[in-house]
Parts: sequence; C-alpha cells; structure tokens
Amino acid sequence: MGQTAAVDFDAMWAELEPIGRDARTGGYHRFAWTSAERECRQWFLEHADQRGLELEADGNGNLIAWWRPDPDVRAGGVITGSHLDSVPDGGAFDGPLGIVTALAAIDVLRDHGFRPQRPIGVAVFSDEEGGRFGLPCLGSRLMTGAVSPARAAELRDRDGTYLLDAMSAAGFHGTPGPSMDHLHDAYAFVELHVEQGRGLADLDRPVAVGSAIWPHGRWRFEFGGEANHAGTTQMADRRDPMLTFAMTALAANKQARLADVRATFGRVLVEPNGTNAIPSRVTAWLDARADATPALEALVEVVRRQAAERADRDGTTLEVVAESVSRAVELDHALRDRIASALDDPPRLGTGAGHDAGILASAGVPTAMLFVRNPTGVSHSPAEHADRADCHAGVEALATVLTDLSR
Amino acid sequence: MGQTAAVDFDAMWAELEPIGRDARTGGYHRFAWTSAERECRQWFLEHADQRGLELEADGNGNLIAWWRPDPDVRAGGVITGSHLDSVPDGGAFDGPLGIVTALAAIDVLRDHGFRPQRPIGVAVFSDEEGGRFGLPCLGSRLMTGAVSPARAAELRDRDGTYLLDAMSAAGFHGTPGPSMDHLHDAYAFVELHVEQGRGLADLDRPVAVGSAIWPHGRWRFEFGGEANHAGTTQMADRRDPMLTFAMTALAANKQARLADVRATFGRVLVEPNGTNAIPSRVTAWLDARADATPALEALVEVVRRQAAERADRDGTTLEVVAESVSRAVELDHALRDRIASALDDPPRLGTGAGHDAGILASAGVPTAMLFVRNPTGVSHSPAEHADRADCHAGVEALATVLTDLSR
Repeated sequence: MGQTAAVDFDAMWAELEPIGRDARTGGYHRFAWTSAERECRQWFLEHADQRGLELEADGNGNLIAWWRPDPDVRAGGVITGSHLDSVPDGGAFDGPLGIVTALAAIDVLRDHGFRPQRPIGVAVFSDEEGGRFGLPCLGSRLMTGAVSPARAAELRDRDGTYLLDAMSAAGFHGTPGPSMDHLHDAYAFVELHVEQGRGLADLDRPVAVGSAIWPHGRWRFEFGGEANHAGTTQMADRRDPMLTFAMTALAANKQARLADVRATFGRVLVEPNGTNAIPSRVTAWLDARADATPALEALVEVVRRQAAERADRDGTTLEVVAESVSRAVELDHALRDRIASALDDPPRLGTGAGHDAGILASAGVPTAMLFVRNPTGVSHSPAEHADRADCHAGVEALATVLTDLSR
Repeated sequence: MGQTAAVDFDAMWAELEPIGRDARTGGYHRFAWTSAERECRQWFLEHADQRGLELEADGNGNLIAWWRPDPDVRAGGVITGSHLDSVPDGGAFDGPLGIVTALAAIDVLRDHGFRPQRPIGVAVFSDEEGGRFGLPCLGSRLMTGAVSPARAAELRDRDGTYLLDAMSAAGFHGTPGPSMDHLHDAYAFVELHVEQGRGLADLDRPVAVGSAIWPHGRWRFEFGGEANHAGTTQMADRRDPMLTFAMTALAANKQARLADVRATFGRVLVEPNGTNAIPSRVTAWLDARADATPALEALVEVVRRQAAERADRDGTTLEVVAESVSRAVELDHALRDRIASALDDPPRLGTGAGHDAGILASAGVPTAMLFVRNPTGVSHSPAEHADRADCHAGVEALATVLTDLSR
C-alpha cells in the first residue's frame, strides 16, 4: 500500500479513537442515537465532504457517500462500508474498521489515478449492534424492508425511550422505512470487518474472505415468580425465578457444548433487584448461533424444554419470545470466488456474528465479506484488536477488490 | 380499642398510602433520601406537631417525637417506632405499621386520660432497608456507633451518588455519627412490625411478641471473566462469569435447604449486560440467615467454596466481600416476659429479618418486638398485607405495653 493511504488510515483512526471511549476500561459506548455515535457520524460526514463524495441519507439513519468521478459511469454501484455504533463497552474495531478502510481504499484508488467505471459507495448503517433497542442490524433491516416501520416504532430502549423519540432527541427527523431502492441494482456489496475469532491468527494470515454467516437469533426468556422477603420466607415456600434462570443458563451452556453450537446469556434484568428480596421476575436473553438452522432450532428447543421443566419444579412461570431470528446466509459464490482470485486465494472463513452484509445478501444484493486478523480473537470487548499492519493490509485488499469490481 | 383510635389509625394510614406507590404493581418505592421518603417524613413531622410532641432529630436522619406530659417524669424513656423507607417495590406495612400504630397508641393512652411516669418516644429510624446504599439499619447503626461516619461517607448508591450528597440533595445537612446518647438510659425500646412469615396465620392469632432476631448478613460475590462476542467465541474458549454465578445461585439454594437456613441471590448486576456479549463481570449479593451464627458461617463457607471450585473450572475469578454481618440478637428476656404477661401470653416468634430493634438491643438498650399477623406471609412485595382488624389489635397491644412500661 502507498505511504499516503497508510498515513490517511492512521490519521482517521486517531480522530475516531477518543470518541465514546471509557477511560477506565478502554471500551467504547457508542449506542445508536447517543452523542458519541452522533460524533462518529459527524466525523464521517466531514471526511465524505473532504473527498467531494456525494451524500445520500435515508430516514433510518443510513448514509452512503458516493464517489462517481464520471457522470456516465454504469448504474450498478459497488458499495462497501459497515457501522459506527458499538455494543456497551465494546471494541474499537467492530464496525469502524470497515468505514475507515473504505475511505482509505478510495484514497488508494485515487492515488493510483484509477477511474472507476461504476460508482463506489461508502455505507454507514445505523444501529447495527442492536445494543440499544434490542434488534441488531436495525438500519439495514428497515432499509431493505426486513423490519416494518410499525415494529420499529414499538422498540424501546432500557430507559423506556422509543426509537423515534431517541432519533428526534439526536436531532434526526427522518421517517423510518424502506429506502435506497437502487441498492437492488447494486453490482456488489463488500463489508470489511475485524475477525471475531482466532481463525486468521491460527492460520498466520492477515486477511480472509467470508464464506457464510451462521443462522442466529435472540430469544427473551421471562421467568416469573413471587417477590418475598429473603430473610423470613422459608426455602420451601419460595417461587424464586432466579433459580429457574440459573439452571437455564447452565443448561444452555451445556447443550451448546454438546451440539458444538453457541449459546450465551449475556444480558439479565432482575426485578425488584434488591438484596433482601426474592425476585418477582428475571428477564434474560439467549443469544444462540449454529452453522445450520436445524441445529439452531434444536438448541433453542432443548433449552426451552429444560427451562420449562425447572420452572415447574420452582413454581415459577416461563415465557419465551423470539426477538430476532436470522437464517443462514450463504455469501454470493461467484463474487466470493472473484474476490478470492483478485486477492491471491486468501483463507475463507464463516462467521457466527450477524452483519449488515447478511441483511443485504438476504435482500438479494450480491454480497461478500473480508475479515482482518484479530490476534486476541476477542470481540465486543476492549480486548478486541487488530495490528496496524493488518489494518493497512485490509485497506490494500479492499482497494484491490474495489478496483476489480468497478473497472 | 376505642373507636377514636381506630379512626385515627385509618385516617393516618390513608394519608400514607399513596406516597411512593407504583400504580402498576401496587408496590412502594420509598428509598432513603428520595422525594417519596421525604414526603413520609414530612407526614410524620405534621402528626408529631398536631399532638404537641417534642421533636428530637440527629445528624443521621433519625427522629424521635416525645410525649412528656409532666416535666418531672423519670429520665429513662420508653421508645417505640420503626422506619418509613421501603425496599424497591416493597409492601405498605414493613416499617410504616410500627410508626402509625405508635401514634395511634399514644392517642389511645390520651383518650384514657393516662399520664405516663416516663417520657414516651416515637422513633423513625432512617434507611432501615439499606435498599439504596446497601447497608441495612444505617440510621440506627450510625446512631449507636455500630457503623462509623467514615464508612458511611464511602457509601454510594447504584447511580454512584454518595450518601452525604444524597442527604444534601434531599435538603438535609446533618453530620452523620453517634447521637442521642440518652438512648443508653432508655427504659425500653419496643418495635411493632408486620410479620414477614406465616407464623401467626398458622396459629390463628393477631399479635406475637418477638423472641430473637436471627444472625444474618450480605455478602457480595464478584465473578470476573472476559468480555467477548457471543456469536464468534467458541464455547471452549470462554471465561463466562454468568455460568459461575448461575451455579453459585443454585448451590446456595440447595445448601440452605439442606441446612434448614435461608439463602437468596436477589440482586445481580451484569457488565456490560449486552445480549451478544459474554459478560466481563457479574456481581451478585448473597443474603443469608440462620438461627445461629455457626450455621450461618457454615452456609456462607460452603457456598463460597463451591463458587470457587466452579470459578476454577470456568476460568473466572471470584472475590467475596462481607458487606454487613449481624450476630444473633436475643431480645431482652425480662422485658419479653413482662410484655407477654401484659398481653395475656401471646405467641413468641423469632425472625429471620433484621430490624433497628436488633441494632438497639446490641447497643445495650432493653429491647422487645411485637409482630402483627400477615395472612399472605409475604413481605418486601406488594402482596405484603395485614388486615385492618389486626392493625387495630396491634395498636391496642402496643397501647397496653406502653401503659405497662411507663406507669
């Protein structure tokens, strides 16, 4: 990669680095429609403007900055990009790496005097993590019609704030819904992302091309019991939903190990959450992923059954609500092979994480993914990392792919 | 009981009833130094004033309203009372019943033309539940020196607000610390409280005299792990503190059943608490009670050991901090027998709940308790209840006891 693009990448990265960072943990808090996330978007708008890119925005908070050097370039664009929001106390790379490499890759193409025959767009999708409103890839789902505006209007964050109110409070007054119809004519969408496992580290390679996105989903488990005094209520008289939840969390872990799939209870709300009160209610979210839909469904079913059996013994109640379920996404084979060939046959990796790429692929856009090595294998945490040299390798790979697809 | 006192009780109860009540659950939110609790205190000040009681207040937020009809009454006072704060979504009776019955009992004595030979005080202790700052009986502990002002100054609520700042924000500018030295000369302290179990309901009796307060305490279990992506991190690579917590909650329940003691995990905080993030940390509070200290210590030790063993297997860390531990309190035998005799031998009940009565007894004040029947047996919940006739029986019993002790 040219020296200029490396400098560009490093300078952009340094600008983003302090925004929304927790000084204590080093993690990021860039929930959708918060001031930190707005600051990141502002940063993007300035860079799009500096490069003379043509901005397209929709009512969902999604942005695409277009490089269209000739007015007569062909219609079907080549789009790259990712998201700027984070999970609570998340890493620096999940999302932003795909945006910063995209802008730097355009700089590389321009340095080389390359003139694309298709417009190249850099996309920022809103609320990818679902960290605030519980529904991941909300921006791309609304854009493609995978989620209705009516359902979005009912979404509330943990403080009870509705999505539309959060958008207004952030100074955004768009109307959510299907948008950017021309995306259906896009030639390709390529999302570059930090790897969220140790595949590339184990292979000692900096960049991979994606093969598939596993089916995955979130199920809300509501365990209902009876609030009572922790000191005076005999053990035999209790209806304690914490016990039902605890057994369910252990069962999910055990079943996921047995079936070689993934299951996590990472979010729990307890009511009333007082030290000397038996809870009246425990709400916990199961995040589950598998390499195929039948295995995913089997996992959720066995966890639900074991939870229900334990609820019977505890005298508690159980309700399970599927909040979002995404089917497996096989990334476009022809596109994947063309990219692999342009990049001299990099490793191919599947991923257990959901991405906007999965939503676009499901909407019929030819879609591919690139992954950049993460030496810790850790993601959604301050320990998430990518070496600077690997980030630069990501810029170079993306520049190569954009050149190939838009020539 | 005279008709007037019954009317007084009912009128006072009706005044308190709406303050801090959650319209959805019917439960109460009267945390220390919040507006709802301040409103309850204001209500008390007005009633003390209406009765011409002499107000004594200390730097901890404790109040005593004295009835001292003759200036030459003997020094050692007879004190009754309880607290006005609640646990989150607590019941209406835990605390306020002891205050309202105390004021109504004084009305009964006056209706009868009784002139006490000792001053009679109605006490309101601040922050009994520890629902906000984590340390129960904070007001009475500070007053008696059981907790130092330095430790109190370090206490923070869930939002990080320091106790002293919360007091200031509530318009209270006292300096916490030992106070009301003459309490050590008190003739007796009698706390009337709603029963927090089904003892009286099973015996079909309205009022009991207390025998003992069980030893009890709160231990904070800090389970540390490694935040990571729920979708991409292989099960074998995880260090998930939720699993260690879950097993510990089940172990505590099982061990408490085996040893016929009580153990509860009712409060849990998860970091970062995101659906698709393996937690970095789970903090959970063990509330444990037993009828004797060795049984309590044995319980906590076995739960701690099983948690540590599981932490080893999960690759997580464990730290256990004793936040408050109260030894068994044998209520004053002579006082108890005298009260039992005055009340024609009511049932005698021990309690697994902590009370300000336990703190005063530990400080050397001759102390007794009265319990009023709770037909649900449920406490710390909107389902906590006492029939109005039983409340009136409580007023009558307390009036009898105050007459006997102050004549």
